[in-house]
Amino acid sequence: MIIQLKPSVTPAEKENILQRIKSLDYKTTQVTTQKGTYIVGIGKKEFDVRQLGHMSGIADIHRVSDEYKLVSRKWKVNRSHIDLGDEVIVGEGTLSIMAGPCSIENEEQVQQTINHLVSNNVRIMRGGVFKPRSSPYAFRGMGVDGLMMWHNSARKSGIKIISEVMQVSQIEAMYDFVDIFQVGARNTQNFNLLDELGRVDKPVMIKRGISGTIDELLHSAEYVFSAGNEKLMLCERGIRTYEKASRNTLDINAIPILKEKTHLPVIADPSHGIGIREYVEPIALAAVMAGADGIIYETHQKPEEAASDGQQTLNFEESEQLITKLRKTFELRARF
Amino acid sequence: MIIQLKPSVTPAEKENILQRIKSLDYKTTQVTTQKGTYIVGIGKKEFDVRQLGHMSGIADIHRVSDEYKLVSRKWKVNRSHIDLGDEVIVGEGTLSIMAGPCSIENEEQVQQTINHLVSNNVRIMRGGVFKPRSSPYAFRGMGVDGLMMWHNSARKSGIKIISEVMQVSQIEAMYDFVDIFQVGARNTQNFNLLDELGRVDKPVMIKRGISGTIDELLHSAEYVFSAGNEKLMLCERGIRTYEKASRNTLDINAIPILKEKTHLPVIADPSHGIGIREYVEPIALAAVMAGADGIIYETHQKPEEAASDGQQTLNFEESEQLITKLRKTFELRARF
Amino acid sequence: MIIQLKPSVTPAEKENILQRIKSLDYKTTQVTTQKGTYIVGIGKKEFDVRQLGHMSGIADIHRVSDEYKLVSRKWKVNRSHIDLGDEVIVGEGTLSIMAGPCSIENEEQVQQTINHLVSNNVRIMRGGVFKPRSSPYAFRGMGVDGLMMWHNSARKSGIKIISEVMQVSQIEAMYDFVDIFQVGARNTQNFNLLDELGRVDKPVMIKRGISGTIDELLHSAEYVFSAGNEKLMLCERGIRTYEKASRNTLDINAIPILKEKTHLPVIADPSHGIGIREYVEPIALAAVMAGADGIIYETHQKPEEAASDGQQTLNFEESEQLITKLRKTFELRARF
Amino acid sequence: MIIQLKPSVTPAEKENILQRIKSLDYKTTQVTTQKGTYIVGIGKKEFDVRQLGHMSGIADIHRVSDEYKLVSRKWKVNRSHIDLGDEVIVGEGTLSIMAGPCSIENEEQVQQTINHLVSNNVRIMRGGVFKPRSSPYAFRGMGVDGLMMWHNSARKSGIKIISEVMQVSQIEAMYDFVDIFQVGARNTQNFNLLDELGRVDKPVMIKRGISGTIDELLHSAEYVFSAGNEKLMLCERGIRTYEKASRNTLDINAIPILKEKTHLPVIADPSHGIGIREYVEPIALAAVMAGADGIIYETHQKPEEAASDGQQTLNFEESEQLITKLRKTFELRARF
Repeated sequence: MIIQLKPSVTPAEKENILQRIKSLDYKTTQVTTQKGTYIVGIGKKEFDVRQLGHMSGIADIHRVSDEYKLVSRKWKVNRSHIDLGDEVIVGEGTLSIMAGPCSIENEEQVQQTINHLVSNNVRIMRGGVFKPRSSPYAFRGMGVDGLMMWHNSARKSGIKIISEVMQVSQIEAMYDFVDIFQVGARNTQNFNLLDELGRVDKPVMIKRGISGTIDELLHSAEYVFSAGNEKLMLCERGIRTYEKASRNTLDINAIPILKEKTHLPVIADPSHGIGIREYVEPIALAAVMAGADGIIYETHQKPEEAASDGQQTLNFEESEQLITKLRKTFELRARF
Repeated sequence: MIIQLKPSVTPAEKENILQRIKSLDYKTTQVTTQKGTYIVGIGKKEFDVRQLGHMSGIADIHRVSDEYKLVSRKWKVNRSHIDLGDEVIVGEGTLSIMAGPCSIENEEQVQQTINHLVSNNVRIMRGGVFKPRSSPYAFRGMGVDGLMMWHNSARKSGIKIISEVMQVSQIEAMYDFVDIFQVGARNTQNFNLLDELGRVDKPVMIKRGISGTIDELLHSAEYVFSAGNEKLMLCERGIRTYEKASRNTLDINAIPILKEKTHLPVIADPSHGIGIREYVEPIALAAVMAGADGIIYETHQKPEEAASDGQQTLNFEESEQLITKLRKTFELRARF
Repeated sequence: MIIQLKPSVTPAEKENILQRIKSLDYKTTQVTTQKGTYIVGIGKKEFDVRQLGHMSGIADIHRVSDEYKLVSRKWKVNRSHIDLGDEVIVGEGTLSIMAGPCSIENEEQVQQTINHLVSNNVRIMRGGVFKPRSSPYAFRGMGVDGLMMWHNSARKSGIKIISEVMQVSQIEAMYDFVDIFQVGARNTQNFNLLDELGRVDKPVMIKRGISGTIDELLHSAEYVFSAGNEKLMLCERGIRTYEKASRNTLDINAIPILKEKTHLPVIADPSHGIGIREYVEPIALAAVMAGADGIIYETHQKPEEAASDGQQTLNFEESEQLITKLRKTFELRARF
Repeated sequence: MIIQLKPSVTPAEKENILQRIKSLDYKTTQVTTQKGTYIVGIGKKEFDVRQLGHMSGIADIHRVSDEYKLVSRKWKVNRSHIDLGDEVIVGEGTLSIMAGPCSIENEEQVQQTINHLVSNNVRIMRGGVFKPRSSPYAFRGMGVDGLMMWHNSARKSGIKIISEVMQVSQIEAMYDFVDIFQVGARNTQNFNLLDELGRVDKPVMIKRGISGTIDELLHSAEYVFSAGNEKLMLCERGIRTYEKASRNTLDINAIPILKEKTHLPVIADPSHGIGIREYVEPIALAAVMAGADGIIYETHQKPEEAASDGQQTLNFEESEQLITKLRKTFELRARF
């Protein structure tokens, strides 16, 4: 059960409502986000919601049978949109393209990528400054210094930044320089990180776990939302299966299923989803056709020389072609 | 190594060529299909193919580094097309739509489905008369009688028939009444069945195994081709993964990968690939965008009353919408 | 619902019982095996079994809530044992060891293996004469001639034979020369083959599918039993997972779960279950400790020269050590 | 390449060695643990190690072809043992039993569990005070207060404590009250956490990821070791597969494979590995037979009332029987 409170709710009214819900044997969680105040009630007892409906301070009451509540589509008539400023909005009805290198490497690389994005009217750039690497001896990224350099260049061109945060202590350091915090596939169930990201007012994109279920992804989003941040999007990036002809198996099914289950925007990552450069395009187009609200992919001026993930990274020419086709595909789908 | 022989090759020339290849320590397999005669040579020794090139009777020689040979795209400049007659052709450049019920149930159902297909200009009808069922107590299909009834109606309307063959002994009984033999996901590695299907001159569509690899699917096709039948197509129908939000996980990656690896047409089955009626459409459209040469899906006049698989079956209205969208999506892709 | 009929049941009594069950809206299947006559009733209606209990011709009635019926442990007080003759019995309380090469290659190999088994008091020899191979160009086995040669030698030494049958047409040809028909992992859901094996009076061992569920394995066994053959055993041989450090992932959990769910003997195949020679021993011992009623593994006088599967095959010295340890492990478990 | 330095190495000698290795185009990482000082060199160039061998300050040089280095068994003659004090040692040659509830709930529960362990001569108690839960609305554990209470009781009885640490900030708070930090399956690739655990002098047990590979587990251990902590053990706890008859699929194969690849102790967790109470025993015994150096499992005075994981938790009677059987099984294996 989700109870939306009125903006004008007084502490006394709120206390009153909480007491009433607890009297029904429901556990309550109070949630205050950028957009509203909610009480989430978890319990099993059946009762007539009209009993509560007339209490002062309540804007609306919704029953949500899913185990996740606030991210469920069952209570929210309209899908969520995330406004990054400067007319960059993520959510149903637009196609958000997020492109850039796996790792931020140096100023020249950043500037070339920005130029490529600007000339193709792409507004969001991806890039890693903290890289989760299986081996402790591998390149682990440029860190906050790299992020500041990147931010400096991006700001001048009106480009928004999405970058992965790996641990709680990085949140504050990154805060001023990113527009979207990305939670990587190895951290989808890093609940402390999710909790903390719920306490900042900055959009968050959560990638599905390496072998995470759709349900777990929704629960992870519930962590962030219930801790206070509803500027959230989800990302399908391929799952681990027995098939080794591709790096991961992009779960195309997850796209319509997520769109049905949640009001949050759904992004697809074909670069990790298949992991082979020449097939990124068909998979990206397929994801759009399946209903994705955005595509995040890797591009680099010279993929062969990229510090990481070169084998799945498009060069700028391929990227330009992909962008054109993505938009035409999205247009067609919008007409259906 | 694949050696294409000239149509005019004499027995003596052929013997000569075989001796020569064996002298190089290559194991040879002679293959005669509807379209040509080949010698497949398996061996490791490096040699100069020009040594053979001048021998009389040889049309062409190709090196194929893949473990599968005849189905590899490495030796065949042009992709394969399968002509079902009456201007129904399966293969790159066209979008083959194959629709119909999971099981053939009765004459009325068959006629209604045919009417639906004809009015939407769909030329191939799917339907099962032998149903592989996990439980021995479940409905196992109408058998050859049902097939004959179906064939009778379909022929009058110019509709081609694809239906699953489950065992060697059914091949002969079905032969006169089907246009495409379908090998189901539980029989992808039923090598005796594949061998026998290689000995008939009738198109075969092999579905990927329930948890078969792309490589195994290609090897299974090699069985049929090397036994003499090159009228072959492959079908991605979802694989088994840990994710239980959908019946199977349609491996969208498999579509561009198969198109790269083989010259055979690649069909996608969104009905089994996701297994949930309301998501069949987006997955079907995604598969086309990823490069599929055809879509096979389940439709029934009253899915709720279908003898099997009702939960993933479209009604005719949904089917009609899907057909329209499939064609528009295919048109867009064709322009790319 | 399983109704066991008395051996003395008359046709009239049987007809009477069938009518009565059908009147309850239950679908009936009549099953006659080597050991008894049963009526399997499938339906949803609740009723008091005592209503039937007094009918003449009925020995016993059991409710079985599982979807599989005859192979369920819910109706059978005692576990099944399979008597191969000459005091070779498979089933709880004994440890059946089945060892031999992947492929039968020649008479010398067969004789050496038999000598090895005899000297270690092992009574069942495994070996393939029809080999399911992914590639059509690989060695496919010696066929029935090889089987006859093998049988000739084995009979003299009191060794029983287990060998894989791949298709219906081989059943008759193999019948006189095998003691156990093995259904391989690629044929676990070859329902026609299962049906036919239900019609012969010869023990059958069904291997779990390459990525088959425990439930599917039980349903496959139900096919054979319900077609008339209850001399059945099941085999866990590893499943396909994302982990590639081993050939397959032996599902050790399946052993106690199967032992709980079915009255049939459960065998484990560590050779395929891990696929790496040096680890066959610990996995075999683990399987015994988990409750396996038997172990089937590959051994060869010179694994390096084996026609197939050499990398997972023990030499005779390793085999001898394993046998000793298997028996000691089984003794310990028997004391628990 | 791993270069073990002499305890007496001088800064000048060390610098000398580092320069020499860098001159060979090898990247170097200096590692100082509780037990020694190492230089890990990563590079591709072949050279004669004797060129380095005579340099002063070097105790030994090892080539390690694995991608992980310090945790590889290739350079270490003897397996690692971890001394927890009071004669509690984990490692090959002993069987470490770690038992206790999923969650620490209250003082009475703790004391009852301790009594149970003491009376069975078990020295290590497991229990969670920070619980990673999929849903933000579920019980998340008693926190540090619970840990302090537990530690207070355990210390009096000579019981050692293993408990999960979920984030960097908990390390310091937990440090004085645990004997082994457990890294849970959702944090196996939380590289920041691993790094920090490498900087404390307290044993660490890393659980395999929910669908982590054996290789990834070894790399995660390399993180901890290379950051300075070699008191490490690994834990197989089941992987995620398509099979849903059990909670996870305990990968029994992983046990002998890990024992071959690394010198670190290998523990098995049958409670999570199968997730069903009545099958914990056979799986635990199987794991010992496969070579595990220890077993960690869940037990509770009243599993039905446990705050979490009750369905896979043994009561004390079952636990006592298991302990007896584990020891007998270990004795048998030790004799082999």
